[in-house]
Amino acid sequence: MLVNCVAYQGGVKLADIPLSEVSDYVSRPECFVWVAIRDPEPAELDALQEEFGLHELAVEDARHGHQRPKIEEYGKSLFVVLQVIEMDGSQLQTGEVAIFAGENYVLSVRHNAEHGFTDVRRRAENEPELLQHGSGYVLYALMDAVVDRYFPVIDALSEEIEDIEEHIFGEQTTRANIEALYGLKQKLMVVKHAAGPLLEATSKLHGGRVPPICAHLQDYFRDVHDHLVRLDQAIENLRDSVLTAISVNLALITLQENDVTKTLAAYAALAAAPTVIAGIYGMNFDHMPELRWSYGYPLILAAMALIDGYLYYRFRKAKWL
Amino acid sequence: MLVNCVAYQGGVKLADIPLSEVSDYVSRPECFVWVAIRDPEPAELDALQEEFGLHELAVEDARHGHQRPKIEEYGKSLFVVLQVIEMDGSQLQTGEVAIFAGENYVLSVRHNAEHGFTDVRRRAENEPELLQHGSGYVLYALMDAVVDRYFPVIDALSEEIEDIEEHIFGEQTTRANIEALYGLKQKLMVVKHAAGPLLEATSKLHGGRVPPICAHLQDYFRDVHDHLVRLDQAIENLRDSVLTAISVNLALITLQENDVTKTLAAYAALAAAPTVIAGIYGMNFDHMPELRWSYGYPLILAAMALIDGYLYYRFRKAKWL
Amino acid sequence: MLVNCVAYQGGVKLADIPLSEVSDYVSRPECFVWVAIRDPEPAELDALQEEFGLHELAVEDARHGHQRPKIEEYGKSLFVVLQVIEMDGSQLQTGEVAIFAGENYVLSVRHNAEHGFTDVRRRAENEPELLQHGSGYVLYALMDAVVDRYFPVIDALSEEIEDIEEHIFGEQTTRANIEALYGLKQKLMVVKHAAGPLLEATSKLHGGRVPPICAHLQDYFRDVHDHLVRLDQAIENLRDSVLTAISVNLALITLQENDVTKTLAAYAALAAAPTVIAGIYGMNFDHMPELRWSYGYPLILAAMALIDGYLYYRFRKAKWL
Amino acid sequence: MLVNCVAYQGGVKLADIPLSEVSDYVSRPECFVWVAIRDPEPAELDALQEEFGLHELAVEDARHGHQRPKIEEYGKSLFVVLQVIEMDGSQLQTGEVAIFAGENYVLSVRHNAEHGFTDVRRRAENEPELLQHGSGYVLYALMDAVVDRYFPVIDALSEEIEDIEEHIFGEQTTRANIEALYGLKQKLMVVKHAAGPLLEATSKLHGGRVPPICAHLQDYFRDVHDHLVRLDQAIENLRDSVLTAISVNLALITLQENDVTKTLAAYAALAAAPTVIAGIYGMNFDHMPELRWSYGYPLILAAMALIDGYLYYRFRKAKWL
Amino acid sequence: MLVNCVAYQGGVKLADIPLSEVSDYVSRPECFVWVAIRDPEPAELDALQEEFGLHELAVEDARHGHQRPKIEEYGKSLFVVLQVIEMDGSQLQTGEVAIFAGENYVLSVRHNAEHGFTDVRRRAENEPELLQHGSGYVLYALMDAVVDRYFPVIDALSEEIEDIEEHIFGEQTTRANIEALYGLKQKLMVVKHAAGPLLEATSKLHGGRVPPICAHLQDYFRDVHDHLVRLDQAIENLRDSVLTAISVNLALITLQENDVTKTLAAYAALAAAPTVIAGIYGMNFDHMPELRWSYGYPLILAAMALIDGYLYYRFRKAKWL
Repeated sequence: MLVNCVAYQGGVKLADIPLSEVSDYVSRPECFVWVAIRDPEPAELDALQEEFGLHELAVEDARHGHQRPKIEEYGKSLFVVLQVIEMDGSQLQTGEVAIFAGENYVLSVRHNAEHGFTDVRRRAENEPELLQHGSGYVLYALMDAVVDRYFPVIDALSEEIEDIEEHIFGEQTTRANIEALYGLKQKLMVVKHAAGPLLEATSKLHGGRVPPICAHLQDYFRDVHDHLVRLDQAIENLRDSVLTAISVNLALITLQENDVTKTLAAYAALAAAPTVIAGIYGMNFDHMPELRWSYGYPLILAAMALIDGYLYYRFRKAKWL
Repeated sequence: MLVNCVAYQGGVKLADIPLSEVSDYVSRPECFVWVAIRDPEPAELDALQEEFGLHELAVEDARHGHQRPKIEEYGKSLFVVLQVIEMDGSQLQTGEVAIFAGENYVLSVRHNAEHGFTDVRRRAENEPELLQHGSGYVLYALMDAVVDRYFPVIDALSEEIEDIEEHIFGEQTTRANIEALYGLKQKLMVVKHAAGPLLEATSKLHGGRVPPICAHLQDYFRDVHDHLVRLDQAIENLRDSVLTAISVNLALITLQENDVTKTLAAYAALAAAPTVIAGIYGMNFDHMPELRWSYGYPLILAAMALIDGYLYYRFRKAKWL
Repeated sequence: MLVNCVAYQGGVKLADIPLSEVSDYVSRPECFVWVAIRDPEPAELDALQEEFGLHELAVEDARHGHQRPKIEEYGKSLFVVLQVIEMDGSQLQTGEVAIFAGENYVLSVRHNAEHGFTDVRRRAENEPELLQHGSGYVLYALMDAVVDRYFPVIDALSEEIEDIEEHIFGEQTTRANIEALYGLKQKLMVVKHAAGPLLEATSKLHGGRVPPICAHLQDYFRDVHDHLVRLDQAIENLRDSVLTAISVNLALITLQENDVTKTLAAYAALAAAPTVIAGIYGMNFDHMPELRWSYGYPLILAAMALIDGYLYYRFRKAKWL
Repeated sequence: MLVNCVAYQGGVKLADIPLSEVSDYVSRPECFVWVAIRDPEPAELDALQEEFGLHELAVEDARHGHQRPKIEEYGKSLFVVLQVIEMDGSQLQTGEVAIFAGENYVLSVRHNAEHGFTDVRRRAENEPELLQHGSGYVLYALMDAVVDRYFPVIDALSEEIEDIEEHIFGEQTTRANIEALYGLKQKLMVVKHAAGPLLEATSKLHGGRVPPICAHLQDYFRDVHDHLVRLDQAIENLRDSVLTAISVNLALITLQENDVTKTLAAYAALAAAPTVIAGIYGMNFDHMPELRWSYGYPLILAAMALIDGYLYYRFRKAKWL
Repeated sequence: MLVNCVAYQGGVKLADIPLSEVSDYVSRPECFVWVAIRDPEPAELDALQEEFGLHELAVEDARHGHQRPKIEEYGKSLFVVLQVIEMDGSQLQTGEVAIFAGENYVLSVRHNAEHGFTDVRRRAENEPELLQHGSGYVLYALMDAVVDRYFPVIDALSEEIEDIEEHIFGEQTTRANIEALYGLKQKLMVVKHAAGPLLEATSKLHGGRVPPICAHLQDYFRDVHDHLVRLDQAIENLRDSVLTAISVNLALITLQENDVTKTLAAYAALAAAPTVIAGIYGMNFDHMPELRWSYGYPLILAAMALIDGYLYYRFRKAKWL
């Protein structure tokens, strides 16, 4: 489905154009065309492949989706695959954006992603002095937008682990905590899956030899790279925290079991003492003088209470109760 | 056992030829021969070694199988060893394909692998514009096919871990779950064993200096490499998940034990209370006024019921029962 | 908020100058200006950006804070982001210093950091022979000061783990110990977050090609780098100790549970023996000769005491009690 | 102790020679001498050092043994240290072979190794077309033999872990299993200790600049390197399996404890029910109508049996029994 | 405190000289001076700094101690920091040696180290053919001596872990074992802390470009490097063993708990059976025919004994007792 197709010149929007006129504008050296489509039909992509002379392998990747993030050079043009992550309640949804960027065109193909890039286009059009850098700047703006959208996801996961920590240390641990830690671990891997491969790929867009369409924008791509490094470190930190939390949690559970066993032992002792005494005075010997005493019964009850009272005091002191 | 032996020219099949005529075709510069054999007799390999001038060490490797995946240059020719993984129920079977690729021949030697490569040959013959790139393209097509067949295996293992997760979090953990996790770990290592070494090896077939028969096909070999990177990441993710699942599982088992101990403690308490009381009124003191009361017995029964009822309510609230 | 704005020439302070005169001094080749501001208003930064010709992306970073530590070259000038860590009781507070260093200016922008750098300025002014190296030396002095302030933090964390070790091995483990280990782990990550990225970045300020303003000060920047390596190793060692302490702690907790279970078992046995005996002599058989003996009762009591005494001796010897 | 001392020319054995004539043969350019000694006396090594002009540091290493595997260049000659591993029942014995290889001599010094290299010499003498490559080929043949002898060791360790796996999953885990896992881990480290350092060292004998005596044999040394890579991966896989088995084993042990606790709880319940009932009817109240019923006793016995039967059925269903 | 100050020429000792004459000898090109001081006063270091023209940053490091091991070039001279480890009972003491080595001087500054280097000096003076290599050889001899002294420490730690292993597998695990494992881990980190940084640093003293004073001694420095590699591997192996021992130990502790719980369960069953039976015959029903039998009591006692005997046999067989 076509989302937008606009021609630009000198950083300024010329016109919304139909796909059929793209070739007119692409052939003008000072012009570039920025096309955005989503969940495309095969035919749409075929048409655009011919228009822009896209490489078969890249188009294959864009058609099927489910690629890993990457940046590939095909001659003078770049093929970039990015994953977009959207939060759906506490679940993460992964979509994909494939970007073809040549000297005078940019084509973005979006799959399974709710959130589009009209805000990026609007912002770019408001800064003609930057947009006149051409297709390279558009590529930067799109990558920057995708990467910036990872941060709120990481923030949400950060809050999630703080939540779990509170539960772990604040009360008795339950299955739910463990399940939450495991789920968080899996979500972190989704984000790492999206951001990790980009980290290495973007390092080739600044410093040393860079693809020609990025040449004048190295400071910008370094900035994207820098964001990815920060993201990567945040993911690693969270992952480390989750793993530590899992093993700390195990220690807490075992400690909890200690407490339960101690309570069990203490109560067993409290019951055992009067049971033994009652058992003794329940024996049927003919000659058991205590049984004949007038105050035998209340004395024995008092003895039971005394012993249990003392035991209770000891267990309390030892924190078994 | 000879599977196929075909001569090609300009991307088009010339003829099925007997092994004895191979030398005629190999000597023509514009021609190349694609031979496929499986579980070969020593004599077969000897004949082909002489025909194509294969290096002794490479032939040794192809003869014995059980090599690790690798790509080696011998002069102008390449020797590639690939492992094929086939699913047999939930078990993995590992076979092997050794490929000798020279300027005008490709020889594939298959060991212990059910699934052949006739589909690859058919597809290649349908795309003469690609097949005319010669033996390098055939090498690419074979490697691409082998690597593509790893993905369904990984998908099956992904489903397996989701299955296990459901069992772990859904019910009481059993030996079967633990055994399944361990088995899954081992299977992942089989796939890693097959795909891992290729990852590094294929990186030498694109970018920088590449062997001459791959020179015009770098974008294609980069695509294979890219698939292997994706595969490698998927394996790593699964492995990480399995290890996390193992430790999470331990926490769940320990938690389960907590629950059992709590239940044990609660029931012990429910039994202990009436036992103590009954013990007391089973004593044989002469002066125990309660024993003489008309309603002594029902009152005591009621007291027992009340105490146990209260304990039950407390244990319920504390989730020990 | 402006903290300081001073012009220097040949290592000697010329004058405190208002921001408005900065441009006069910056234009003199033999002069440089050292400006320090904290928690700046947007307008302040805008003014300084124009004054010194700072790059938009760098100013963006300095404005918002919450960057990761880094060293970036923009043309002939350097942009450095450092994190400062201040101890607030046993908690760590993270602030930030952004430094812009050009040929004849240094601008430091401090965020959320109590402790300023007036001591650095004072020391630098006392060593004119070093200060005359210009803005590069000021950059070194600031970086050195920030890095040196990490060491007391690491020392405090070292003491913290020694404290925890004493608790773990000295007495029964409690939730508090586990929580302390987890907290320590998180604090280490805060310091690593601050020092880690600098380690790599500073390695580019000595040896090989270095930015021009650092060129004559490579030995000094190598010294900073060396401190960071030492710090990094100290963090790694502490982290390793914490992780080992967590798993050792788990073993100790499990051992503790063993002890509790053994105590439980021993006391259960001590109660069970007289209970069984009393039960037997509480039976109502008509013909139980022992019940008629004159010394039956004291004999049985003695038997009970003997058995329990023996059991107690055995449990003591086996260290179950 | 001298084992062998043979002069070769053009790949053919000239004669067994005494050590005193070595210098005559070494001086002939087309000749080379292959000397093998074991557990040498200091004087033997001193003589050979002078004969071949060996470097003091290398001779020191060969004299004392207990070196790590390594390959060092001293001018035009190579000094190689290899560890040989021999199985003694289920224990591993580590010996050492030091090889000095110069343009026209090879000297192997064996320490603590039962199994010699006469088979290597025999095979080499049977292939004069290869042996005529000179001392470099002998070096290859010796290294290849040592590396090939690691594989049966690894196979034995592989079988050992499969054995342990069967025990772990097949029956109740015992101390013996855990001890076996730990022992296996230690043995793997012995093999890694032998093979690991060679992996890196052999990579310098093929590709890029290689020592002159290996120059024409790069394909052969690459083969040795390839075997070492395979070995290294096998060791890593086994190590990973052992570590996973250790943690899986812990989970199984904990699960086993769950089962024991459940059984304990179930039997406690089965005993508690009749105990409580018998306690009640053992009380001495004057007015307990049930005690007077003719069928009171059998009815109560039936009630006890019924309750325990029901409990037993429930515990069975819940798999506690 | 000055330890030694000697001038050498052509590998031969000229004279013990006072510090004040150092400058006379240093200025002669064919001479070099070897000064050793320990725990120096500030003034001593200041004097020597001026004498030899040492760099301020290096002198700072030597003055304060507590540096990490490192090798730094300052112009044509080298500054080396080494840590010496001395065993004090089973504790490790860390001292430090800083070495300044220039074209014709070597200055070693020892901190907190009992064991000096007079043996190194004596050995060097006995080998004038080596000592005539000048200050580079002295540097080598000192580094070699420090590194060689690490090996007995590692051997002691190796024995320590074998001791602990015996305790772990031979008897019931105690807190002491766990504490010993943790302590061993910490000691390993002390040695790693000393040897690890040198490993990388020494690799720059052989192969490729090396500092001029080491140029003719590359084989010797490679030997030191080789020792450090061996040391590093030994440390890694021990560390791995300790970590495995910790987790194996946890499994053994849990297994031990299983045994205790089983014993508890078995004895509980042995007590429960007669308790239930005695309870039944302690009931006060009017019509309990067994109570009237002449042999009722002995029959019941026999039944109790029989049941407990059978249970005992079963528990024995199942290894619960």
